[in-house]
Amino acid sequence: MNKFTITFYPDNKKVEVTEETTVLAAAISAGVYINSTCGGDGVCGRCKVIIRKGAVTTQPTGRLTIEERKKGMYLACLTVVHSDAEIEILPESRLDFEHLSEHDSALRLKGLFAPAEDVEIEASDRVSSIFSFIPVTLKFYLELSAPTLEDSVSDLDRLYREIRKVKKETMSLETSLSNIRKLGELLRLAEWKVTVTLFRKGGITEIVLIEPGDTSCKNYGLAFDVGTTTISGRLVNLQNKHVIGTKAVYNKQATFGSDVISRIVYAQQEDGLEKMHHAVIDSMNEIIRDLTSEHAVDLNDVTCVACSGNTTMLHLLLRIDPTYIRREPYIPTVNSFPAMRALESGIKINPRGVLVCVPGVASYVGGDVTAGVLSSGLYREEALSVLIDIGTNGEVVVGNKEFMISSAASAGPAFEGSGVASGMRASRGAIQRVEISSEWEVRYETIGAGRPRGICGSGYIDTISQLLTRGIIDRSGKIIDRDHRRIRVGEMGREFIVAFKEESETGNDIIITEADIENLKRAKAAIYSSVHILLKHLNFDFSDVHKFFIAGGFGTYLDIDHAVTIGLLPDMDKSKFVFLGNSSLAGTCLVLLSREALVKSDEIAGKITYFELSVDSNYMDEYMSALFFPHTDLSRFPNVKYAV
Amino acid sequence: MNKFTITFYPDNKKVEVTEETTVLAAAISAGVYINSTCGGDGVCGRCKVIIRKGAVTTQPTGRLTIEERKKGMYLACLTVVHSDAEIEILPESRLDFEHLSEHDSALRLKGLFAPAEDVEIEASDRVSSIFSFIPVTLKFYLELSAPTLEDSVSDLDRLYREIRKVKKETMSLETSLSNIRKLGELLRLAEWKVTVTLFRKGGITEIVLIEPGDTSCKNYGLAFDVGTTTISGRLVNLQNKHVIGTKAVYNKQATFGSDVISRIVYAQQEDGLEKMHHAVIDSMNEIIRDLTSEHAVDLNDVTCVACSGNTTMLHLLLRIDPTYIRREPYIPTVNSFPAMRALESGIKINPRGVLVCVPGVASYVGGDVTAGVLSSGLYREEALSVLIDIGTNGEVVVGNKEFMISSAASAGPAFEGSGVASGMRASRGAIQRVEISSEWEVRYETIGAGRPRGICGSGYIDTISQLLTRGIIDRSGKIIDRDHRRIRVGEMGREFIVAFKEESETGNDIIITEADIENLKRAKAAIYSSVHILLKHLNFDFSDVHKFFIAGGFGTYLDIDHAVTIGLLPDMDKSKFVFLGNSSLAGTCLVLLSREALVKSDEIAGKITYFELSVDSNYMDEYMSALFFPHTDLSRFPNVKYAV
Repeated sequence: MNKFTITFYPDNKKVEVTEETTVLAAAISAGVYINSTCGGDGVCGRCKVIIRKGAVTTQPTGRLTIEERKKGMYLACLTVVHSDAEIEILPESRLDFEHLSEHDSALRLKGLFAPAEDVEIEASDRVSSIFSFIPVTLKFYLELSAPTLEDSVSDLDRLYREIRKVKKETMSLETSLSNIRKLGELLRLAEWKVTVTLFRKGGITEIVLIEPGDTSCKNYGLAFDVGTTTISGRLVNLQNKHVIGTKAVYNKQATFGSDVISRIVYAQQEDGLEKMHHAVIDSMNEIIRDLTSEHAVDLNDVTCVACSGNTTMLHLLLRIDPTYIRREPYIPTVNSFPAMRALESGIKINPRGVLVCVPGVASYVGGDVTAGVLSSGLYREEALSVLIDIGTNGEVVVGNKEFMISSAASAGPAFEGSGVASGMRASRGAIQRVEISSEWEVRYETIGAGRPRGICGSGYIDTISQLLTRGIIDRSGKIIDRDHRRIRVGEMGREFIVAFKEESETGNDIIITEADIENLKRAKAAIYSSVHILLKHLNFDFSDVHKFFIAGGFGTYLDIDHAVTIGLLPDMDKSKFVFLGNSSLAGTCLVLLSREALVKSDEIAGKITYFELSVDSNYMDEYMSALFFPHTDLSRFPNVKYAV
Repeated sequence: MNKFTITFYPDNKKVEVTEETTVLAAAISAGVYINSTCGGDGVCGRCKVIIRKGAVTTQPTGRLTIEERKKGMYLACLTVVHSDAEIEILPESRLDFEHLSEHDSALRLKGLFAPAEDVEIEASDRVSSIFSFIPVTLKFYLELSAPTLEDSVSDLDRLYREIRKVKKETMSLETSLSNIRKLGELLRLAEWKVTVTLFRKGGITEIVLIEPGDTSCKNYGLAFDVGTTTISGRLVNLQNKHVIGTKAVYNKQATFGSDVISRIVYAQQEDGLEKMHHAVIDSMNEIIRDLTSEHAVDLNDVTCVACSGNTTMLHLLLRIDPTYIRREPYIPTVNSFPAMRALESGIKINPRGVLVCVPGVASYVGGDVTAGVLSSGLYREEALSVLIDIGTNGEVVVGNKEFMISSAASAGPAFEGSGVASGMRASRGAIQRVEISSEWEVRYETIGAGRPRGICGSGYIDTISQLLTRGIIDRSGKIIDRDHRRIRVGEMGREFIVAFKEESETGNDIIITEADIENLKRAKAAIYSSVHILLKHLNFDFSDVHKFFIAGGFGTYLDIDHAVTIGLLPDMDKSKFVFLGNSSLAGTCLVLLSREALVKSDEIAGKITYFELSVDSNYMDEYMSALFFPHTDLSRFPNVKYAV
């Protein structure tokens, strides 16, 4: 079979491929990450590339305009190479890993939401007030007495004896053969002064590391929220609880599809699981490398990683086949992941460092939700509370300290800026606030205050709310038929121009299409109706809800009135809403900093029951009723008034 | 540097070496094991080879006779090659791994000692009577219910739930990532019918294996006694306690020295530890391969190996530096070895199979002694008892169920046939019983009833006893000055010919030299005086001893009267002596078959205190007094009468 060399620009990365390889597959092999919401099915039209040189064949697609085709654009997933080629990946097709971190600082500067530090400080405080500060991996310094003929216990027993003495506890201790192999010389060279790193697992305490001298001040851990779209990591000093830095990158798995279902499907391809596993591990290792090098932390001093994520993400992270998550009756292989060496998963910290994962509840209610419940304190509430986590999936928990019930709402990634025409994550250049005047003039605010590049979740909520308020769309989401410079007709129906190409950074109009509105409507309907069904199942309604926690990346900036206006949130007393931000990351931080929180997360996951919406006879009716703005039943939203 | 090829015969094994490589080192590289009691110091004269072809240089040595030199013999350790060479290893220089197994069956046929089966049956019985039969690794079959939308716990939780249900126990369960990775598909392909292998470690029960279908009838384990000179292994069916076979081979480490001290010294050479580690692992894997293939047992069905051995042997087995065992204050790195995957040590059974080691007491009182105490039942005795284990080292335990005290006697390998002129292990052709008439005619009995090849431990005890009885040696061990065809003068003093070359299989006289007698005298003195000192330390004497257990390879055939005559055993009521055979192997079998025995072995090791003889002011006096036959103080041996 012929072999060709493809060079990808602007990365200038080369890869050798065989004939019949798609450009998307070649890019994956080359380690170049192309946006592909549909996972290579030719549906989303995100993977646009320009063929600079080389022979290719492609398939017809409605996802490229005639203008784009004239510019030499192709969809990477539908295009096959037949010679050496030079291919340029368009900016909008690239998975851009840098912007998220910028975004992080940009938002902090603008003070638009509780900055990461606040959440972090809160987590640290909670560790003191609710959970004891005993990190998952605990370092401490020991001075052993040297052996004598009279005191001739073995080196290992001497170490064990001192640990028990210092900890004032008859613990069951163990360590690995590799530690034992170096122990004799290490103890003597260190003149019996060593630092041990302990990790408790079940009834056994493992000595993870034995280091010469006093290194107890150098002990770091990372908390990760592994999202379908975004991976966030936080570096913490385990000796004093201080947060050192936080960083987020796109999950490189986005190349293989934007939601968990397309990822599970991709996993069934040859090497599919392996590739996605490496993509997520690469993303995590990037964060680790960046945070540690930025803050001059030695990787060997990082002794623990705590992870949360939805069940599919954690399966992929650990290279566990997620196939059965998607097949009825939707069974994950594992909800409670065993603690292990981080190295076993490919995560690069100290080779003997530990990885713990926050346990999940079910196939579609993962450890991220458990971490959210832990972080929100819902599990301690006396009164009935609700938690919604809006990410690529939507999850709902209803309960209090007595009981908790959960369900998954197939929200889709629309609120994360995926699957919508001008959608983007809440990063630099994202339109995050929108106001539309009665004259249809649009005022917006972008993250970083520069030219707009797209619209993020909160921007969409504002936009739809304003479109409704101004009567530009009707309650079903259709754009009215009016001749106006902001309304145009595209291939998929009418479109509303939020920002003209003259204003934008990309040189393209930033728009919202009827298809986008349909997408967003479905997402809000799924979440609203899920909460409603759970409450109903328990014989409650929204008036019984005491606190309504909102988690998820976009929740850090959200106009509640607008969210109620579109029917995403119920029409209730605003004081009941509590923003959590990334509660999964915050909860994982708690776990990292406190063994008690880790134990509590197990309890929480065990206590939350899972409610399968698809088997509830009322769910589909309820969902259909929510496919209007704000809802078919207007009596549920007495305070919402539209122009039309 | 020049490179040469050496071919070793009769193995016909080739190896490439650089100039200045000794023949002994080349043989080690080639995987040819040459006897070398002194570990290559040119002292023992055991490593005789014939250079058939090639240029060599050698050093002068008194260990080769002029006749031998004429035949082209060299000592492998003192000889360096300077060209390609062909080298023949003499039969007596070879570490002969085959004879021990032959010996095993030969002895059984002759019924000379409790055959292996008896010991094995005893072990099995004891498992039923004293310890519950719960093997270290336990297999059992499960039929899980298939998941439904109503019963949607994860695959792993489903498995855990069923195990807890069947075992009627809320145990803390865990399994490895690799098992979890294959779990989803395995459970479904097996239609939810699987066999699990459990291993309990501390408070946690690990699922070692998950196999499709019912494989519970296929569960095997191996018990090993890793001796300095001999390694014995026993294959056991863990489902029904049946012993399947026993096999012994020489420890290939003998190439590096005959006793633990020379091995520890060798370990400090470059790659020394690595080489010895591989030698012992090779020896063990040979036994495993032979036993499993002979009995058609699949290696994957072997789920556990239990090991005992002296502290140095277990350090080398696990590639732990033994340096500090030899340096005052004689501290081993580890006495209680953690359970681990057998694979971590290099032992080849099921890759997920488990290795447990019987814990030791001190640097010179190892797990073999703990296993012996376990097997003998000394730890349960009401009355004062003694256990001596005579191998390459001698160990002594004195105590009962209230207390136990132990010490190490530097006996040396003389009773194992090493370090004595015609010495050999108790294998085919070994003279094991000797009678000398008043006319100095020698009647002997060999193992296998064929022509003699050498003398084993019990043969030496008989010989010395008879030499004393007939007045051929005096109480200091000197051969009397008389002109007799059985007495000759060699390089190292007088020698007594036990069998003439015409009778022998090797064509050489089989002799006992004054140096041999001195060696054996020192060994018996060390053991006797150790027991005496321990008793004295506790304010007891031999008359207080209720039972006197004798363990060790040679103890399976031993004439007690003769052993008392030479002063190895005290002169006491014969009914108090109990032969244990290889009590280390028997005890290790108990551990393999019963978790309770494993726990008990920990208790025993923790309870036995170690007494360092070298710091006791009386020991040297007592030892010196024992350097006569039977003892300087004849009043201690009232029943022993010599001719002279």
